[in-house]
Amino acid sequence: MQSRSLPVTAVKLEKGFWAEKQRLVRETVLPYQYSILNDQLPGVEKSHALENLRLAAKAQAGEPLDEEFYGMVFQDSDVAKWMEAAAFSLAAERDPELEQRLDQVVELLERAQFPDGYLNSYFTVKRPGQRWTNLQEAHELYCAGHLMEAACAYHEATGKDRFLHIMERCADHIYQEFMQKNTRGYSGHPEIELALMKLYRASGNERYRELAQHFVDVRGQEPHYFVEERKNRDWYVWQPNDVALDKDYTQSARPVREQRDAVGHSVRAVYLYTGMADLARETGDPGLKEACERLWESIVQRRMYVTGGIGSTVLGEAFTVDYDLPNDTVYAETCASIGLIFFARRMLELEPKGEYADVMERALYNTTLAGMALDGRRFFYVNPLESAPGIAGEAATQRHALPQRPQWYACACCPPNVARLLASIGSYAFSAGENTLFLHTYLDGRLESPFGWAMRCETGYPHDGRVSCTFLDPAETTVALHIPAWSRRTVLLHNGKEVDLSGVVREGYAYISGTFAPGDKLELVLDMEPRKVYASQRVPADSGRAAVQRGPLVYCAEGADNGGEVFSLSLDREGGLRELAFDPTLLGGVAPVVAQGWRTEAIKELYTSCRPERVPAEVRLIPYYAWANRGLNQMRVWLPEN
Amino acid sequence: MQSRSLPVTAVKLEKGFWAEKQRLVRETVLPYQYSILNDQLPGVEKSHALENLRLAAKAQAGEPLDEEFYGMVFQDSDVAKWMEAAAFSLAAERDPELEQRLDQVVELLERAQFPDGYLNSYFTVKRPGQRWTNLQEAHELYCAGHLMEAACAYHEATGKDRFLHIMERCADHIYQEFMQKNTRGYSGHPEIELALMKLYRASGNERYRELAQHFVDVRGQEPHYFVEERKNRDWYVWQPNDVALDKDYTQSARPVREQRDAVGHSVRAVYLYTGMADLARETGDPGLKEACERLWESIVQRRMYVTGGIGSTVLGEAFTVDYDLPNDTVYAETCASIGLIFFARRMLELEPKGEYADVMERALYNTTLAGMALDGRRFFYVNPLESAPGIAGEAATQRHALPQRPQWYACACCPPNVARLLASIGSYAFSAGENTLFLHTYLDGRLESPFGWAMRCETGYPHDGRVSCTFLDPAETTVALHIPAWSRRTVLLHNGKEVDLSGVVREGYAYISGTFAPGDKLELVLDMEPRKVYASQRVPADSGRAAVQRGPLVYCAEGADNGGEVFSLSLDREGGLRELAFDPTLLGGVAPVVAQGWRTEAIKELYTSCRPERVPAEVRLIPYYAWANRGLNQMRVWLPEN
Repeated sequence: MQSRSLPVTAVKLEKGFWAEKQRLVRETVLPYQYSILNDQLPGVEKSHALENLRLAAKAQAGEPLDEEFYGMVFQDSDVAKWMEAAAFSLAAERDPELEQRLDQVVELLERAQFPDGYLNSYFTVKRPGQRWTNLQEAHELYCAGHLMEAACAYHEATGKDRFLHIMERCADHIYQEFMQKNTRGYSGHPEIELALMKLYRASGNERYRELAQHFVDVRGQEPHYFVEERKNRDWYVWQPNDVALDKDYTQSARPVREQRDAVGHSVRAVYLYTGMADLARETGDPGLKEACERLWESIVQRRMYVTGGIGSTVLGEAFTVDYDLPNDTVYAETCASIGLIFFARRMLELEPKGEYADVMERALYNTTLAGMALDGRRFFYVNPLESAPGIAGEAATQRHALPQRPQWYACACCPPNVARLLASIGSYAFSAGENTLFLHTYLDGRLESPFGWAMRCETGYPHDGRVSCTFLDPAETTVALHIPAWSRRTVLLHNGKEVDLSGVVREGYAYISGTFAPGDKLELVLDMEPRKVYASQRVPADSGRAAVQRGPLVYCAEGADNGGEVFSLSLDREGGLRELAFDPTLLGGVAPVVAQGWRTEAIKELYTSCRPERVPAEVRLIPYYAWANRGLNQMRVWLPEN
Repeated sequence: MQSRSLPVTAVKLEKGFWAEKQRLVRETVLPYQYSILNDQLPGVEKSHALENLRLAAKAQAGEPLDEEFYGMVFQDSDVAKWMEAAAFSLAAERDPELEQRLDQVVELLERAQFPDGYLNSYFTVKRPGQRWTNLQEAHELYCAGHLMEAACAYHEATGKDRFLHIMERCADHIYQEFMQKNTRGYSGHPEIELALMKLYRASGNERYRELAQHFVDVRGQEPHYFVEERKNRDWYVWQPNDVALDKDYTQSARPVREQRDAVGHSVRAVYLYTGMADLARETGDPGLKEACERLWESIVQRRMYVTGGIGSTVLGEAFTVDYDLPNDTVYAETCASIGLIFFARRMLELEPKGEYADVMERALYNTTLAGMALDGRRFFYVNPLESAPGIAGEAATQRHALPQRPQWYACACCPPNVARLLASIGSYAFSAGENTLFLHTYLDGRLESPFGWAMRCETGYPHDGRVSCTFLDPAETTVALHIPAWSRRTVLLHNGKEVDLSGVVREGYAYISGTFAPGDKLELVLDMEPRKVYASQRVPADSGRAAVQRGPLVYCAEGADNGGEVFSLSLDREGGLRELAFDPTLLGGVAPVVAQGWRTEAIKELYTSCRPERVPAEVRLIPYYAWANRGLNQMRVWLPEN
């Protein structure tokens, strides 16, 4: 059964884990990021993103430019993602000041737009007259896509259509450029495909779906567009190198329907697959659906970290080969896990299989959350599963894998990406099919189904496995609750009476159909017992090791809880795991886990043939997402087990 | 007590491990490599090294050049190292055909030399008029150094001085260029320093020592020579990049006496330190000796693999930071371990400490030997401690870490380097101090001491720990036998009577002084019981793991002996190691070790929370140097222990 995610306006969070995250986004992250985008925060990497747009607006007005464009070719997208996050945040809670700030940026975008609809500060300020000459590198369609997503969010949140019209004009211009002029170009960095699908739904304009389809279809065809484009171009964004010339890097080595392995730049990959899956749902194209399923398998069965991270190497920020999942030289970009969540959501909309929701939760509750500090002011771009300060961030092969979150980045794609995801979590948690409401993950809040009834869910998830959903209106409907694969003993109560799950669970969802009255309750009790996780013997990096997971949360050992030293710790093979009480004062509220294990005594030599003694030790573990919030610390997810 | 290595002519090998290696070099490696240097072997990386010299000779003769220079700027050094290996081989066994071939190359060099002594095919053929304009990159002094080493070896082996005179003329030219013109230049790739020390001893010409001292002293001074040089130069060998501009890469960030950590390109580093140690011994310069001791410690206490490999990253083929010793993305270039052997030998000459000999053996019997296939026709440049075919050589971060030895390389520094080291092993095994003969490692052969007496050693080392040395002449002398740190119970018999080692061992050497008659015997029995080795908890890559070592040989588990699969194997913490009988038919003769351990059952999923079963398993191990001689195979040195 196909389904469609609920709009963010349908979900109101009031308390609990996600309400707190959204409050943090609203009160801290959005103002903090705005001040950076507006160059008002000293001592951090300069953004200049809003200033670039002001320069573009001046250029449109024929005024002289007193400054140069600064930053990445895709600097506009930082503004777009911030706007999207701000819009989602407005949907959750009115905020006139924020809305006014947003409206000012919308007005700025309007002024920066060309009369023909074209909108991009880099090309306007730095490369006038060179539009569409470097689709491979210059992120022109990518930036447009992010602005389209922001416009849709703004429209959904506020009902105002000014921004939407700006981006419709932009999309119309792109349609004309790429469809009516019949060029075979497409973006080096996918994003426009999924954005056009959103714009199509927001506007109802079929041409945008048609354009998305076009971009998906021409990708990877021969003669190769990027090869031809380079022949006619005398400028580069980056020096051409092996990575830039590698067609896999841009997922364009072959037409998308023929792609079998997830390759290349991992963010590009999952953004592309998201657009493909969205289109496959819309058009029913079986070849496209099969390609999505193959690429999904390639990722989740062979190329994904236990934390839901993807991209094993900094070289091209890319996928490598099957089972190559190093924990320390890893990339696992925050944006890539966010993209994997997008892909999972589209696959869920296409077909409700628990596996998609399981992976969505893996990426969400681990790598994505780890992308932001608990205080909302520092961000990881790279998310290692093992970090030894002194080596991490220092050694040539780990220079990218910082042991602490910086305040900002010259390439700042991740921070606003986290913000927009957290601000729109309701859309990922719920979707609606044929008179069926799907719950993919659990959050505490009230939702309005599109079937005329509302429901309140109460839960301490992801720290607690009890979820209580109460109907607020009479309903004759089906509720489909995701039963995560990690929950070994799941109990579901319908008005206090246990449901025989064997009769109602299909592919990871419990389907409860019936006539419900206000006050009727569905109570789910997931098995939150912490447990060890093992990787395939095909993953050399994890052999002889175990990780600990509790509910959807992967845990890690951090120095701060373990006397400063985690690399001398091991888990006892037969030893148990003990969950400590939820501690609201620790790391914003976590339930630590203590594992029976061993500490090997320190040796002075580099190598010794005297076996070091070991003593029993309690290995204290915290959720991975909360690491690196207490200064420089050793950290390890996969611990030796002996 | 200082000592001086014995010349290769003083050691004759007749049977056993090293005689077999030298026979392989003589019968297979030298002809094989000559055919490649001479472009007579189809299907391998093209060398063109001899042809480059022929072109240079033509240029000297004023003949038109019908071809272009091909290969690396240091292509001459491949010829030089081959010549050095061939010369050493002639010292061991007369071979008129090989000698004639060598003489032809000497004659070719003579013809390629400028009247002023300059000799370098790259600059002669490709960059006439640009001599000495790119010391940072162009390996001019490096190539000269290798030819000087070859000339010294040739002189030592054959007594003929033609080649020596060629290189004296070249050295005189360099002296004039760098001393009399008073430039502050030095080589981007050290080598000339150690080579000049050899030439100084072979010729007795003090100016070569003086020139070596000069090159050591000016290195790293400000204003920085390479920075200044780049300002006056309009050509590059390689595109300038971060690595090339990094002063650490060339060990020139500061004067050598102020250097504390082993940094940069690891071959360059140990070649430099070798020259420094040689000079320190010669001059008694305490600052230089202390720098050598610090740099030695930096390597062997913090930056060296258990196999004696050095250089943790492919990025710049370089050292990284302390305790960063990844097993799979490792570099551990064969040449770097050979350079570490050079450095160890010079440190031993400076001061006889067992630690130097221990590291020399570690680098020799493991990484260096692993650099060449057992058939002498394939070579490793990079020596991983863990290899998973499918990932190794394939994944972006392991593209350099091939799972099988290629026949040749475009950058072919390692193959002839192995050849010259094996052909001169006698010089590393023995050195002579004040009426004292040092035995640093053990080989089966006859040696002529410089004190007028000879000795025959019989041993199956490194596979067997019994060494029997018999005096062939009367002698009143001291024999100092290296007692490796790994030998826990060592027995030394003097004419069958056990010597109380506690009274005679100082810093890893047993000093036996006395009056010896022909037939008198010193018998050493080293403890060859296999044992597990553990790394410091500061090395994240090895935590929870153990390696197995027997004598000087580090062992590894290879797929061929273990049902194809080694990543599911672990060692039992309490389990024993059992040595199998020496099998002369296996891998050229090895004594396998069987470890009690476990095999974890295969799981199909990428991750599972069902603990995989394990069954007791015998983990079969072979010496590391013999890996990758039986087709594509998984391999692992550090095995999980549980």
